Order: sequence, then structure tokens, then C-alpha cells
Amino acid sequence: MSVTAAKGFRAAGVVAGLKESGKPDLALVVNDGPLDVAAGVFTTNRVVAAPVVWSRNAVADGTARAVILNSGSANACTGERGATDARATAEYLAGVLSSQPGAAPVDGTDVLVCSTGVIGAPIDMPVLLAGASAAVAALDASAEAAHRAATAIMTTDTVSKEDALSLEGPAGTWSLGGMIKGVGMLAPGMATMLCVLTTDAVVTADDARAALVAAAARTVNRINSDGCMSTNDTVLLLASGGSGVAPEQEELDDAVAEVLGRLGRRLVADAEGATHDIAITVSGAVSEEAAEAAARTVSASNLLKCAVAGNDPNWGRVLSQLGTVPEEVCPFDAEEVDVAVNGVTIFRHGGLGEDRGLVDMTPRETRIDIALHHGAAEATVWTNDLTHGYVTINADYTT
Amino acid sequence: MSVTAAKGFRAAGVVAGLKESGKPDLALVVNDGPLDVAAGVFTTNRVVAAPVVWSRNAVADGTARAVILNSGSANACTGERGATDARATAEYLAGVLSSQPGAAPVDGTDVLVCSTGVIGAPIDMPVLLAGASAAVAALDASAEAAHRAATAIMTTDTVSKEDALSLEGPAGTWSLGGMIKGVGMLAPGMATMLCVLTTDAVVTADDARAALVAAAARTVNRINSDGCMSTNDTVLLLASGGSGVAPEQEELDDAVAEVLGRLGRRLVADAEGATHDIAITVSGAVSEEAAEAAARTVSASNLLKCAVAGNDPNWGRVLSQLGTVPEEVCPFDAEEVDVAVNGVTIFRHGGLGEDRGLVDMTPRETRIDIALHHGAAEATVWTNDLTHGYVTINADYTT
Repeated sequence: MSVTAAKGFRAAGVVAGLKESGKPDLALVVNDGPLDVAAGVFTTNRVVAAPVVWSRNAVADGTARAVILNSGSANACTGERGATDARATAEYLAGVLSSQPGAAPVDGTDVLVCSTGVIGAPIDMPVLLAGASAAVAALDASAEAAHRAATAIMTTDTVSKEDALSLEGPAGTWSLGGMIKGVGMLAPGMATMLCVLTTDAVVTADDARAALVAAAARTVNRINSDGCMSTNDTVLLLASGGSGVAPEQEELDDAVAEVLGRLGRRLVADAEGATHDIAITVSGAVSEEAAEAAARTVSASNLLKCAVAGNDPNWGRVLSQLGTVPEEVCPFDAEEVDVAVNGVTIFRHGGLGEDRGLVDMTPRETRIDIALHHGAAEATVWTNDLTHGYVTINADYTT
Repeated sequence: MSVTAAKGFRAAGVVAGLKESGKPDLALVVNDGPLDVAAGVFTTNRVVAAPVVWSRNAVADGTARAVILNSGSANACTGERGATDARATAEYLAGVLSSQPGAAPVDGTDVLVCSTGVIGAPIDMPVLLAGASAAVAALDASAEAAHRAATAIMTTDTVSKEDALSLEGPAGTWSLGGMIKGVGMLAPGMATMLCVLTTDAVVTADDARAALVAAAARTVNRINSDGCMSTNDTVLLLASGGSGVAPEQEELDDAVAEVLGRLGRRLVADAEGATHDIAITVSGAVSEEAAEAAARTVSASNLLKCAVAGNDPNWGRVLSQLGTVPEEVCPFDAEEVDVAVNGVTIFRHGGLGEDRGLVDMTPRETRIDIALHHGAAEATVWTNDLTHGYVTINADYTT
């Protein structure tokens, strides 16, 4: 169960024909209400794809009825035509949905659009629109339909990524589910992260937005697979109110953070070529922001990522990278720092600690814990190792 | 010719025994005067090796008589003992130099120390000091001696890197030469960049420092091979005054920038696993700082570096990375940007340009020119591609 786990949602995944491989490439998620609450967070890249511009505007009023997502083409760097195509996609789908028997009218601005795949090439609109019609016909509330949607948004992902949560409270049971995709890049375009979360909780647009922004900041925004930010990244939360249950804000926040966190870690686990998932935790910092900045900096080290690929608990590469964090961003004293890899503190108080031979690097899960002893805050950033597989995927198979 | 090209300098390179391979690992450069002018620029990493701390202090007064450089051990993250060892090295060498027949006394603080190699392990001092004595005995003003010094500072470098320049002016001829090392990293330590420049020009310490700082900012500080900053980076300029010629400041600036620029590009050309040297030039920026920041950001893209390795002129990866430069750092409008790869403008005014099939990516030299059309300033940052070889060097061969 994923995007249809919550009451009030139907989904579909079909083969439109945008991918040369003939694999599924068009997904649809529809919110049948009664609420049409929506919130979104988007890439902060200054070069943004047309569908991001469209969806950012369309969701600004806190409502949406449907999300259409295609793989195979990112509709990025496509100029005026790209903007026209994104709008046309939304308006076409709104028309098809409105014409369904017994359907309420859907406005084009209540359809959000997400694209991923090759950038720079215009999207094949006749193929896309025919696919959209087929997807509407295939809409279903089943787990199978949700799975087909999650499959249709894959690019270089090797597995589909879905998750769902059911919560019981004094007022009844409500659910939250979601799907995500993105594992790095796909020449000549980008394997953007796209994510759709759905819930049947009764929430306002402000509540939904607050929960999504907070959760994204601590989950998907703390993933740094290869340091390259996409033009298309989009995370959406739709709420139908179908459960009739209105959770407390904190309960909503926790649920969104939990599902988005789990989905985010699935991205890391499927990252291009990766053989290790790496969780870098900086503790003892003066603030959470400082801890996050330090962890993010360490996560960007190609040298460290290569060392992990080689099962080498190389604390020197942790220290040298940590040392590039500006003092004003994260104050610490190098002489007080401890570094533990998979639980073994091999660097302690600025000098050698336990024998590095005690570190077992064979598990896929790798923990690097950096204790600054300079405050009480901590943060974790997730990354993955840098392998021959990454180079192969991003260099050898070019078009 | 390199560090002995200028009058007044002798050099040596010997096998001390710090490297397990038995290759040369100790170099010495001595300034016989008449001047003992010296200037240095050092890593801005907050985690700095003991020899950097020593040399930064020792050169602060603008004088030095000798530089001792060892490979095989970085003497980094070695705590109090590292500091003691760096000082002891300088004082020992000062004593040996002072005891030479006819020698003027040399103070310990006039000996600069540079180290590169494994980090975290204390340096083997008896081996180092015996090597220092041997190096003093081998000091010579010949090109061969300079070459042996350049060879002794290599770590994962595949070739030694030397350069020299002879300048003729109305007041006579003067020379500038230098050696450099550094190609990435060497597990479990770091293949730091170390560079020694020597000149027989008559210059003041302030002139030397001004020329070195300006040149470093536009040359070696604009190299971004793998984004990882060393704890040991050191660039030194020694002036003997041996030519009797006092060049204009501008002439000195130009000569230092030319030699340091050429040496820097030799680093890129020998970067770990690299098959392409990449010069990323951003033009049409509001300031040189803005252009440099944008070029540096683009140079950090693993995806772009993989694309170049695969002979793929992937402008999408240029654009998506360029879009991550903050607006306040480098203002531009994505709709006005041109991107040319090896002279072919494949992205123009925010849309498709010439056919990417026209780009020849087979030469090792790769030029990526990004025209922002937003100002008059430009800057170039040098990097290299990301290959299987890099991963192999930094992952597979661990200790």
C-alpha cells in the first residue's frame, strides 16, 4: 500500500510511450475528497523545469485534485514551449477528469504536474496526453494500482519505493502513504527525486504545508547522494479528509516525517552504484543547523565515499573534510573531536583511538558518528558510497 | 630546471626510508642568498598538520633559509607529538646547515617544513633526521639535483612536476623556478599539494608575499580536482636576490602567476585516474568573484565529471549545477545563458544551440565556456573527469 492506503485516493500507472524502453512512464494520483488540501516543496535550484514552475504556482492556494507524473522526459530547459506543455497537460487532464460520469468539475490549476527523465528535449505531447486518458481509465483505489503508479515514475531506480502508515487515536484511525523515486542521474538528464504523499486525515492547507516543510527539512533534504541538485525535485502532500479524523499537528508532523524519512532512506539504498548506505551524524554541536552543515560537508567527500566503498574506515578523510566547515558555521576544536565508524571510536580527542582493525565495514549500513563536544545539538545526513558502478552509470552509458 | 634555475639555490632529493616502497622521500631546498626572503600560503582547512602550523609561524617574518619536505608521512592529526616533531626537524636541519664549512649560522625558525603522505601516524624521526643529514650532503645547484628534489616529494603523482622561467629586462636577467606535487589522495592519508618556488630577483618580503598571494588566488586556488581540501597544502616562494635584478612588482606578479599557473595545470593533468583536463570558464559575470564562484560550483559536479569521462558534452549537467549558485553570489538569468563545449555552443539563450554531435570530446583538454551575459567579468577553474581509475585508487587500494 502506498498512495492509495489513505481513503479517498485512486492511482494509476500506464505505458504512455515516452520511454524508448516501453516501460511504464505515466502515473496519476487523484484525490476524490471530500477535502482537496495540498502542499508542496520544490527544488531550490535556480534552473527549474517547467512542471516545477507550474506546480509551485498551482499548489500555492493549498488545493489540488490530481497529480500527473511522467518519466522519460524532464521537460527542463525547454523554454516557453516547456511552460506551454506543462499547462496544457494540467488542463487536458482536468478536462478528462471533469468529463467522467458523476465527476465534479476539476480546474486546470488543481492538477499538479511532475516530470523526470531526459532534459532539454521537448516532451512528446500527443503521446503524453493519450497516456493521460489511459491513466484516467485505469484509476483504481487498490494497492496494485498504487504499485503501478510507483513503478511508472522510475528512471534508473532498480526498485519501486512505497510506504504507508496507519495511525490509531482516540478519534479513530487515519492513514498516510506515499511513493518516491530518484537514485542519482540518467544521461543526458537527471533522475530527479519525485514524491507524492497522501493522507485521509482532516487537515487544513496550512497544517499540511507546515508538516511537509518540517519533515522535508529533516529527511529528504538531508540526503546527499552525489551532491547534484535536480531541476525537477518535487515533494507533494495531498489530504482527502476521508477518514474523518483530525489529528493533532504534532501527530501529523510525526507521521509525515516518519513516512518521508523511510522513503528517503529507500532512495539512498537504491542510489546509483552504491554498495553502502552511510549515515553521518554530527553530535555535540552548538545548534542543529551547525550539526547539519558539518554532516552535509562530510557527506560530500568523494574521498570518504570511495574509502567506504573499499571497506576502509578512513577517519583521516572525515577529519580533513570536517575541517573545511567554516568556524562561524559550526564552531569546534579539532583537538576535542571523536570519530566512530560503525560504533568503534577510532579517533578520540584529536588523536588515535581504538584499533581501526576492529571496525566491521562489511554491512551495507555504515554509521559515521562525529562527536564535537562543543554543544548539545545533533543532526544526521544520509549519503552512499562512490563506486565503479556510479561512474559506469554516469559515464559509460551516455547518449 | 626548476628550484635551482634561479641563482643562489641548491637542492637535494634522497631516500630517507619513510616510504615503504623505498622510493625517494626527502627533499631539501636551500637559499644561499644574499637575500633570505620568503613568503607562504597555506591550506585554509581548520584541521591543519603540524608542519603547516610550524611553517606558517616561521615564515611570518618574511625570511627563510631552507625548506625540508618529506613524503610518506603527513604528520597530520598527530597532536602534541606532531608539533614537537616538526619543530625538532627544523632545529635539527638548522644545526646541520650551520655546521657546514664556511656556512653562516641558520636559525631553526628559518627552516620551513612540509610533509605529505599517511595521516594520523607519527613521523619516524630517526629515519627523517638521518635523511636530512644525507640531503645536506647531497645539496647541489644542478638541474639533476632539482629533479631529484621534485621526485622525492611525489606520492601518487605519476610524474615529477617542475617548471622555470627566465626573464630579460633592461636591468638584466632573472629567473623563477619551482616544483609541485599533488594529484588527489592516498589512503589513508592525503596527497597534499606542496609547492616551492625560487627566484633570484631582488625583492622584499612584502613584494614576494603580494605576488604569491595574488598568483595563488588565480592559479592553484582555482583547481578543484575532487573537492577535497588537504590539511597540509603549502605554497612557498623563496628569493635569493642572486641575480642582482629588482623587477617591477607587476613583472614579478606576472612571472609568479605564470609559473604557478603552469605547475598547477600539471597537477590537473596528473590527477588521480583522470582522462580529461577540464577548464571551466564563466564569463559575463558581474564580478570576478561571482564568475569564480559559479565556475567552482560547476567544477564540483560528479555527474558532469562522469559525463566528460564518457565523452558526453552534457550541457544539462552544467545548467543544473550552475543553478545551485545562490543568486546573491552570482546573479544571472537562466534564459540568457550560453554553454559551449570545446568551442561548440550547444546551449544558447536558455535553449538548444548547435548540434551536440559536433562536439569532439576525444582531446584530453576539455573547455566548458559558460557565458552569463550579465556583466563583464570572467574566471576559469580547472578540474578533471571522474573515472573508474579515481575510484580504484581511492577505494580498492586501501590499507
